[in-house]
Amino acid sequence: MFLTRTEYDRGVNTFSPEGRLFQVEYAIEAIKLGSTAIGLKTKEGVVLAVEKRITSPLLEPSSVEKIMEIDEHIGCAMSGLIADARTLVEHARVETQNHRFSYGEPMTVESTTQALCDLALRFGEGDEESMSRPFGVSLLIAGHDENGPSLYYTDPSGTFWQCNAKAIGSGSEGADSSLQEQFNQDLTLQEAETIALSILKQVMEEKVTPNNVDIAKVAPTYHLYTPAEVEAVISRL
Amino acid sequence: MFLTRTEYDRGVNTFSPEGRLFQVEYAIEAIKLGSTAIGLKTKEGVVLAVEKRITSPLLEPSSVEKIMEIDEHIGCAMSGLIADARTLVEHARVETQNHRFSYGEPMTVESTTQALCDLALRFGEGDEESMSRPFGVSLLIAGHDENGPSLYYTDPSGTFWQCNAKAIGSGSEGADSSLQEQFNQDLTLQEAETIALSILKQVMEEKVTPNNVDIAKVAPTYHLYTPAEVEAVISRL
Amino acid sequence: MFLTRTEYDRGVNTFSPEGRLFQVEYAIEAIKLGSTAIGLKTKEGVVLAVEKRITSPLLEPSSVEKIMEIDEHIGCAMSGLIADARTLVEHARVETQNHRFSYGEPMTVESTTQALCDLALRFGEGDEESMSRPFGVSLLIAGHDENGPSLYYTDPSGTFWQCNAKAIGSGSEGADSSLQEQFNQDLTLQEAETIALSILKQVMEEKVTPNNVDIAKVAPTYHLYTPAEVEAVISRL
Amino acid sequence: MFLTRTEYDRGVNTFSPEGRLFQVEYAIEAIKLGSTAIGLKTKEGVVLAVEKRITSPLLEPSSVEKIMEIDEHIGCAMSGLIADARTLVEHARVETQNHRFSYGEPMTVESTTQALCDLALRFGEGDEESMSRPFGVSLLIAGHDENGPSLYYTDPSGTFWQCNAKAIGSGSEGADSSLQEQFNQDLTLQEAETIALSILKQVMEEKVTPNNVDIAKVAPTYHLYTPAEVEAVISRL
Amino acid sequence: MFLTRTEYDRGVNTFSPEGRLFQVEYAIEAIKLGSTAIGLKTKEGVVLAVEKRITSPLLEPSSVEKIMEIDEHIGCAMSGLIADARTLVEHARVETQNHRFSYGEPMTVESTTQALCDLALRFGEGDEESMSRPFGVSLLIAGHDENGPSLYYTDPSGTFWQCNAKAIGSGSEGADSSLQEQFNQDLTLQEAETIALSILKQVMEEKVTPNNVDIAKVAPTYHLYTPAEVEAVISRL
Amino acid sequence: MFLTRTEYDRGVNTFSPEGRLFQVEYAIEAIKLGSTAIGLKTKEGVVLAVEKRITSPLLEPSSVEKIMEIDEHIGCAMSGLIADARTLVEHARVETQNHRFSYGEPMTVESTTQALCDLALRFGEGDEESMSRPFGVSLLIAGHDENGPSLYYTDPSGTFWQCNAKAIGSGSEGADSSLQEQFNQDLTLQEAETIALSILKQVMEEKVTPNNVDIAKVAPTYHLYTPAEVEAVISRL
Amino acid sequence: MFLTRTEYDRGVNTFSPEGRLFQVEYAIEAIKLGSTAIGLKTKEGVVLAVEKRITSPLLEPSSVEKIMEIDEHIGCAMSGLIADARTLVEHARVETQNHRFSYGEPMTVESTTQALCDLALRFGEGDEESMSRPFGVSLLIAGHDENGPSLYYTDPSGTFWQCNAKAIGSGSEGADSSLQEQFNQDLTLQEAETIALSILKQVMEEKVTPNNVDIAKVAPTYHLYTPAEVEAVISRL
Repeated sequence: MFLTRTEYDRGVNTFSPEGRLFQVEYAIEAIKLGSTAIGLKTKEGVVLAVEKRITSPLLEPSSVEKIMEIDEHIGCAMSGLIADARTLVEHARVETQNHRFSYGEPMTVESTTQALCDLALRFGEGDEESMSRPFGVSLLIAGHDENGPSLYYTDPSGTFWQCNAKAIGSGSEGADSSLQEQFNQDLTLQEAETIALSILKQVMEEKVTPNNVDIAKVAPTYHLYTPAEVEAVISRL
Repeated sequence: MFLTRTEYDRGVNTFSPEGRLFQVEYAIEAIKLGSTAIGLKTKEGVVLAVEKRITSPLLEPSSVEKIMEIDEHIGCAMSGLIADARTLVEHARVETQNHRFSYGEPMTVESTTQALCDLALRFGEGDEESMSRPFGVSLLIAGHDENGPSLYYTDPSGTFWQCNAKAIGSGSEGADSSLQEQFNQDLTLQEAETIALSILKQVMEEKVTPNNVDIAKVAPTYHLYTPAEVEAVISRL
Repeated sequence: MFLTRTEYDRGVNTFSPEGRLFQVEYAIEAIKLGSTAIGLKTKEGVVLAVEKRITSPLLEPSSVEKIMEIDEHIGCAMSGLIADARTLVEHARVETQNHRFSYGEPMTVESTTQALCDLALRFGEGDEESMSRPFGVSLLIAGHDENGPSLYYTDPSGTFWQCNAKAIGSGSEGADSSLQEQFNQDLTLQEAETIALSILKQVMEEKVTPNNVDIAKVAPTYHLYTPAEVEAVISRL
Repeated sequence: MFLTRTEYDRGVNTFSPEGRLFQVEYAIEAIKLGSTAIGLKTKEGVVLAVEKRITSPLLEPSSVEKIMEIDEHIGCAMSGLIADARTLVEHARVETQNHRFSYGEPMTVESTTQALCDLALRFGEGDEESMSRPFGVSLLIAGHDENGPSLYYTDPSGTFWQCNAKAIGSGSEGADSSLQEQFNQDLTLQEAETIALSILKQVMEEKVTPNNVDIAKVAPTYHLYTPAEVEAVISRL
Repeated sequence: MFLTRTEYDRGVNTFSPEGRLFQVEYAIEAIKLGSTAIGLKTKEGVVLAVEKRITSPLLEPSSVEKIMEIDEHIGCAMSGLIADARTLVEHARVETQNHRFSYGEPMTVESTTQALCDLALRFGEGDEESMSRPFGVSLLIAGHDENGPSLYYTDPSGTFWQCNAKAIGSGSEGADSSLQEQFNQDLTLQEAETIALSILKQVMEEKVTPNNVDIAKVAPTYHLYTPAEVEAVISRL
Repeated sequence: MFLTRTEYDRGVNTFSPEGRLFQVEYAIEAIKLGSTAIGLKTKEGVVLAVEKRITSPLLEPSSVEKIMEIDEHIGCAMSGLIADARTLVEHARVETQNHRFSYGEPMTVESTTQALCDLALRFGEGDEESMSRPFGVSLLIAGHDENGPSLYYTDPSGTFWQCNAKAIGSGSEGADSSLQEQFNQDLTLQEAETIALSILKQVMEEKVTPNNVDIAKVAPTYHLYTPAEVEAVISRL
Repeated sequence: MFLTRTEYDRGVNTFSPEGRLFQVEYAIEAIKLGSTAIGLKTKEGVVLAVEKRITSPLLEPSSVEKIMEIDEHIGCAMSGLIADARTLVEHARVETQNHRFSYGEPMTVESTTQALCDLALRFGEGDEESMSRPFGVSLLIAGHDENGPSLYYTDPSGTFWQCNAKAIGSGSEGADSSLQEQFNQDLTLQEAETIALSILKQVMEEKVTPNNVDIAKVAPTYHLYTPAEVEAVISRL
């Protein structure tokens, strides 16, 4: 007689009889509760766009940071537990700064992503920097290095993939379909901005305003759009 | 067959199948049992006001400290477990002092808030300063730095938001509604004092006196009101 | 379906769904089984009085120490687990001595109380000095410093309050009511002695004698009453 | 619905809902299974007497040590787990020797007792010298220092009391009653020897011989009676 | 009465009554869910071929790395948890680099494989590099050293075998049968490429393209085939 | 309602409600499964004799070591888990060698026994040399020092006793009765040899031969009998 | 009421009420699943022979190493978990090399065996080299030192015995019987080879070939037979 699946799911890092790691799968669930984020890679650079859930009119929209700079050539959008994401981003910032200091050149986007995933993978190991549970967050990492623009997607298992376009968070399923329809290799950065925001608009329950979305680009350096710049993109929809 | 939700809620830092962290949610419950605290940001500075539960006439009201100074430009109001809050505040005081010593300038309000949340996030990790459970406390952090006045709100998950006005504790729901009605960007500090205290009055079960409320402002330096100053605000209600 | 409350109460430091810390609440129960102790603050100084349970006529009454000196300007009365109290008092003695050595002046009563509570709060953390469970003891800390006389009350959660008068232990409920009736700001030290002992007499099951009560004062230095001095107070009842 | 008391009693150091520490209470049970030991303080010095259970005629009676020297002015009788007692006594011997070396004078009896109890209290803390469970032993500590003769009694909770006379072990209840009847402040050391042995005789199931009891005195130095000296006391019964 | 087998399978590293280690067996299940990988040894060198599951057309196929270089004379194909494989490969890279630095010569393929398996074996030991669970990955390690070409196969138990040909992952059963039919000692490298890809084609559910397979050889140095080179092999099928 | 006794017996070092330590009691059971060993003290020296279970004719009898030398003046016979005994003996060998090196004289038999028991007592403490469970072995320690010959008996609780004669292992009950009948203080060493072997013969299921018993003496130095010497004793039966 | 035996068998190192260590017994079960290995000692030297399970024709037979060299005068055959055996062998190799380096002479076979068993015994202790579970492997250690040839047998409990001949693994029962019939002290090395292989042949399910058995001798140095040498022995059957 097999125990039901739930008997295996509280050991932080234990295989079930089918070879599954449930705590990682549950952390992925945490991301499905998160706000939606979208990334698109063009030849000119990468665009990130996120939904911000402003639960109260008294909240300062700019303090709900769902897009953050890692280094001047790398930024990331996140969905899931924000405090977890901050820890990962802070770790990546230190890594990229150390790299610049040691080698006199920027860290590549892939190495930065790998460093983030190394930390994410080692949950439950009792290391100084690692957590006792999986990090409950997915990241879209946009960057520009000697290989040109690139977009990476990470999940709580510490795995990463390089993508042309990707959506994460509660609206990711619909958004991913739309991205597959609308993406092509020859998009301009401006077209990418418009696509990202129009897809975000579809999955959000409220009217899109500079208060409840953030947009950033890495082209080739990181830039978080001002409310006016966001307004400009909205006006193009 | 899924186990009921409560099977997942005693692992200090374990995801439930829906991606929730129950110990953090239970710590948030601890705050709903706490006394009410209110913060309002104006262009002149930030006002904090708290209810003090004086359970016995023999208690020294001034020893029930629910508003504390972190640095001369930062103060905070708290709701939840007071001993936990003291640990966080003490940590923040050391961080801000170290910053002054190392860089010869005050720490920004956001960095101070981030330092507090880093500690709060790492519960259950076995670090020297962290706790084996979430900190059962929310803070309203009022400060004034090169970006002018600011008000931050933190919760036990280690997440923080910047707000124009915010209420925490047992009366926070009603108080937040009142704040949304009464807040506007052009309030004077004096108007903010009056609003804070009048809202506190609504959620308290007893008559407001200098003994059972505390008021403080950061404008631009931290000042805890004397009983006479509190009396003056009460008289304006 | 919620589990019953008792399912949460053995994790040393775990929140229940209602945000409660049961081990701390159970430690507070330990104090309700303890002997009664009373403190009163007057302008001349602070009086402490405790019941001593002499379970056998062969016991040396003076070895049942329920009032102890911390520093020459601070003393404390205790209720609960005596061995736990000794650990806390020993910690406070080291702290106050270190303070004198480092700064050439006595530690304030509040700082001393804070140091005691810091240790009490950190149970279950695996620190060298902390315990693996809450300290099962409450203290009444009487002191005299640059701010004049003061009386603090601590509980197992690591929280403290400043009081004018306070009773702890099995008879604390009745004793606290009596204190509220009889206390006023203008009591002389001698009147405070009489009130403390008369209230203790009410909650004790045996006749009051120099063998089964201890009295001490901090006015401005700590002094434990000799049997003759206790006899003198008894004779005034 | 409360769980039954036994649900709380295996956590080494956890409070039950009524504020009890069951592992300590169970360790006290271990002592009730132990052989009886008796101590009496006189003005001339302190007498210790113990029952020795000689389970086989092939056992060397002198190797069943239930009274041990700590320092030349301190000895102790024990009841409970002998191996635990040896650890405590060894600890006390090191402490008293260190004291002599550091201060050039003997350690007081109270300080020695306190040092023993500090170790006993810290079970379950993971310290180098402490045990992972309570010490299952009670001690009667007899000593002579600048304050004259003294007799201390310790239990597994790490608490100690000063006594004029005290019995521990399986026959302690009856023996304590007899001690209360027969003790007075003016006993000579010889009378104390006779009382101790006559009470021991009442609670033992076999005839008293130099093989199955040990007697020692601290007057003012520790001396374990030779078989001839024990025989002499027996002959006086 | 024996407990059912599942009672033993959550202790990370505990024997069942029949002498089995279930967590290792479950990790092996994780590999059966993985994509298929194939290795063939010829006299000219070793060929590795893997299926890549491209779950979205927006995914960058080259970022789904299932064949990785360890040193210039060693490469490996993997099936199972990719993040686990990366940790093992990174470990092997460091080991081979250290070997070159210390001894001025390349590490042998067997020593490299042994180093990987040492790490895999020690899961649950709390070492710095080891994991708290078995690595959920199998590797096919292809190399060329002083003993000529060699192919090793490792599993999550830390065991390894040398093979002439081997398949791992979800399609391994059918692929192994085909390999036994088609393998002989006199295959050329080109024939091996064709066999590997034709077998992979049988177990894959989609059409084989340069996007969804990777091929590499070690002959005698590691080389990952370009899309054009893969296309050339496909065209020979 | 009390839980049954077995609920308390898996905590390695936890008291049951009756004050018992079950893991120690179970370790004592392990010894009751062991082969029988006998020790006798005479004025000339101490004799040890053990049964050796030779489970196969292909086993080298001399490799079944149940009597071992600790120092030239101390030897020991064992019953229970042999690998545990080896660890204890190795520890004792280091202790006695260190003693000789530090003090230039042999360690007394009692100090050596105490050192062994200190290690045995501290199971479950996480020390470097201690075990995570009780040592499942009893020892008969025979020695000769400035106090003449002596025989000690240790059990898994870390307790020890000095004996004139003692049997341990599966046949200990019958053997102890025989020893009590046959032992007297005036035995010669040769008589002791004969008694030891004749008693061993009674409890063994096979014919006594030099292959299935070992005899040793400490008189005053340790000597393990050669097969010829054993044969000589057998011939005297 | 006793719990059934299985309640005690998951604590890695805990006694059952009958004094048994179940995890060790289960590890012994793991060996009963292993391939058969045989050792025979002659005056000329020791012969080891093992069955190799070649599960696929594509497996390189020489990579299934079940006989390994420890030092030039010591080799061992194994049955059970191969990865565990490798760890033990590697440990023994380091020990013998250190011995040569420190003392300028080879380590004796017994000391080497003892060193292996010390490591095996200490499972679950958290030492750097020890495992968190028993090693699931038995070894036949063949060696030649100043005492001539010797053969040792170790099991997962860390116990070892010296033997004239011994079989381990799934066919050990039948093989041991055959060994007892066929072994005598005057066998030549060549006769021993023939006996070992003929017994192995009886317990194996397939035809014996140089691919599925390995033979080695220590006479007086370790030598693993080439396929031709194995073929020669086969031809003598």
